[in-house]
Amino acid sequence: MLARPATIGAMRATTLHAAFDVRFTEVPDPEIVAPTDAVVRVTAACICGSDLWSYRGENPITAGATIGHECLGEVVAVGAEVREIAVGDHVIVPFCHCDNTCPDCRAGVQSACRNGGMTVSGQAEFARINQADGSLVKLDGRPDASLVPSLLALTDVMATGWHAAVAARVEAGSTVVVVGDGAVGLCGVLAASVMGAERVVAMSRHENRQKLATEFGATHVIAERGEEGVAAVRDLTDGIGADAVLECVGTGQSMDTAFDVARAGSTVGFVGVPHGVKLPVRRMFSRNIGLAGGIAPVRRYLPDLLELVLSGRIEPGKVFDLTLPLDQVADGYAAMDQRRAIKVALTPVS
Amino acid sequence: MLARPATIGAMRATTLHAAFDVRFTEVPDPEIVAPTDAVVRVTAACICGSDLWSYRGENPITAGATIGHECLGEVVAVGAEVREIAVGDHVIVPFCHCDNTCPDCRAGVQSACRNGGMTVSGQAEFARINQADGSLVKLDGRPDASLVPSLLALTDVMATGWHAAVAARVEAGSTVVVVGDGAVGLCGVLAASVMGAERVVAMSRHENRQKLATEFGATHVIAERGEEGVAAVRDLTDGIGADAVLECVGTGQSMDTAFDVARAGSTVGFVGVPHGVKLPVRRMFSRNIGLAGGIAPVRRYLPDLLELVLSGRIEPGKVFDLTLPLDQVADGYAAMDQRRAIKVALTPVS
Repeated sequence: MLARPATIGAMRATTLHAAFDVRFTEVPDPEIVAPTDAVVRVTAACICGSDLWSYRGENPITAGATIGHECLGEVVAVGAEVREIAVGDHVIVPFCHCDNTCPDCRAGVQSACRNGGMTVSGQAEFARINQADGSLVKLDGRPDASLVPSLLALTDVMATGWHAAVAARVEAGSTVVVVGDGAVGLCGVLAASVMGAERVVAMSRHENRQKLATEFGATHVIAERGEEGVAAVRDLTDGIGADAVLECVGTGQSMDTAFDVARAGSTVGFVGVPHGVKLPVRRMFSRNIGLAGGIAPVRRYLPDLLELVLSGRIEPGKVFDLTLPLDQVADGYAAMDQRRAIKVALTPVS
Repeated sequence: MLARPATIGAMRATTLHAAFDVRFTEVPDPEIVAPTDAVVRVTAACICGSDLWSYRGENPITAGATIGHECLGEVVAVGAEVREIAVGDHVIVPFCHCDNTCPDCRAGVQSACRNGGMTVSGQAEFARINQADGSLVKLDGRPDASLVPSLLALTDVMATGWHAAVAARVEAGSTVVVVGDGAVGLCGVLAASVMGAERVVAMSRHENRQKLATEFGATHVIAERGEEGVAAVRDLTDGIGADAVLECVGTGQSMDTAFDVARAGSTVGFVGVPHGVKLPVRRMFSRNIGLAGGIAPVRRYLPDLLELVLSGRIEPGKVFDLTLPLDQVADGYAAMDQRRAIKVALTPVS
């Protein structure tokens, strides 16, 4: 069924075996299971900051399971009920799949689609997509190599940063603080900037990330963390706090910072997968600071974001500062874990 | 200074001495402290559900301190800088005071006013108001007795129920669940109904409260609690959940129920003072369910709510089902604590 002659039902994929033990190994080919599925040949992939939770053993590990949820692909097989997508299509694969027709999808929460799923072998030769018609966004043929990084960023990080800004209700003319200088945080800076925020404050200690934040539209960079960082935001805002805060990390400390810099009546948009977070409910109550966000409904934003990329308005692919072939994926994880790389792109191996 | 001849700097007020020990005793008269203050003679008062946290010893108690934050009044003294309010004015006293000009007030969060304060002797003969010009809403003379209960409800519970509905983003045509059948929850039902919700679901076990909820516009009443109550909402919404949820209690159980009945992508509007609440941050993340609300910015809503009362469109005063003279305030607390009364109004003693 798969348009690949040389295997006998097996492909090579990134698998996690224990904390810090990532391998590129042979696993069964993904197959069409439901008639709404598609299988794509992965043409570009990458490592997500959220993959590091598993890599570091902070999420439970199933030894030998595939990992990776961000990729572009070329469709090599479709199920019997797939109508809009055909073999040969080049597609953007949102990391969370959706039928795009159920009540949750229609409400704009495609990440909660009741018929959805998730890419589970994105850092591999092939990946299965649930709900191909609802999930996949077709490109106009094979994308130009110069566009690939930015298109790849749309599968998760750019859409996630955008979601943080939408959830935090960023408005034109407002002051926005972005907590977290990973790829998602940097994309949050870009999103807030595109949405017309007057001041975009990136909280970042790392020079290369500060530089990229500035390229993405940050008007201020605050290197201090914790109480000092909070004080710096207060100084900048005449003691009022930020009109919108994007929490793009997911730790207890980053969440505390987010609420501490938020002005009364504002909203913290959160997209960092929460780990060890205890929300300050009394502070939220006394200051009317809301929390909104969660897993980004990538598919909802893809048409607009694709247009922004194709028109040259945004170039989120700049978050990739290291590119490796898939069979060196272990080096990529190590580089991101040790913060030697912001985000690692992975290219197919022949 | 106070327009009352018979005292020598002392008044009678409700004071809390220990858990379940409320008295009507003599305390010093409130005085003008800041030039922006006013003092009102209390013309109508009431007991708030949130007073019960202190009454039951679930908040720290300062023995002998006054209690009570909801009242109407007639102004008997104003500070030198008060311009809009004059002695003799009949006023609605929002429980949280505000200058109505600071950045937080201008952003609609008058409850976070940096120059604000709170009514601390509302169940008394007199009360001091901070920021009289910003806080007080003048009535057109002494209000008709028939209007007093509804005007009194605007000082807190009606504005708080309204805030829950605003925070939860209730929209016309939507399905709204209200968790909590206290006076605030009932006012939340009324608010959702006025805002045009198609289905307003009151979660209530008590027949008299169910009846009032229905009068206030509830289209459905669910008497079950916990998992059964959640299942009932799911049944009612084809498994989708509510478009907006008003959390009007503040306990861990009520908050859990609120998140369990909320559909993906919706917002829980919370106005119950949180006690023992641990927010389900992972569920909020995975289902994109937001939380917004907090201490109601009463002053923000007062003009609109006053118009609704004066036009006869709403009659929130129906929440009062027991009226006692102030010197029987202890009976009023006991009645509310034992849920023999929904809400107790208190009348001045001569």
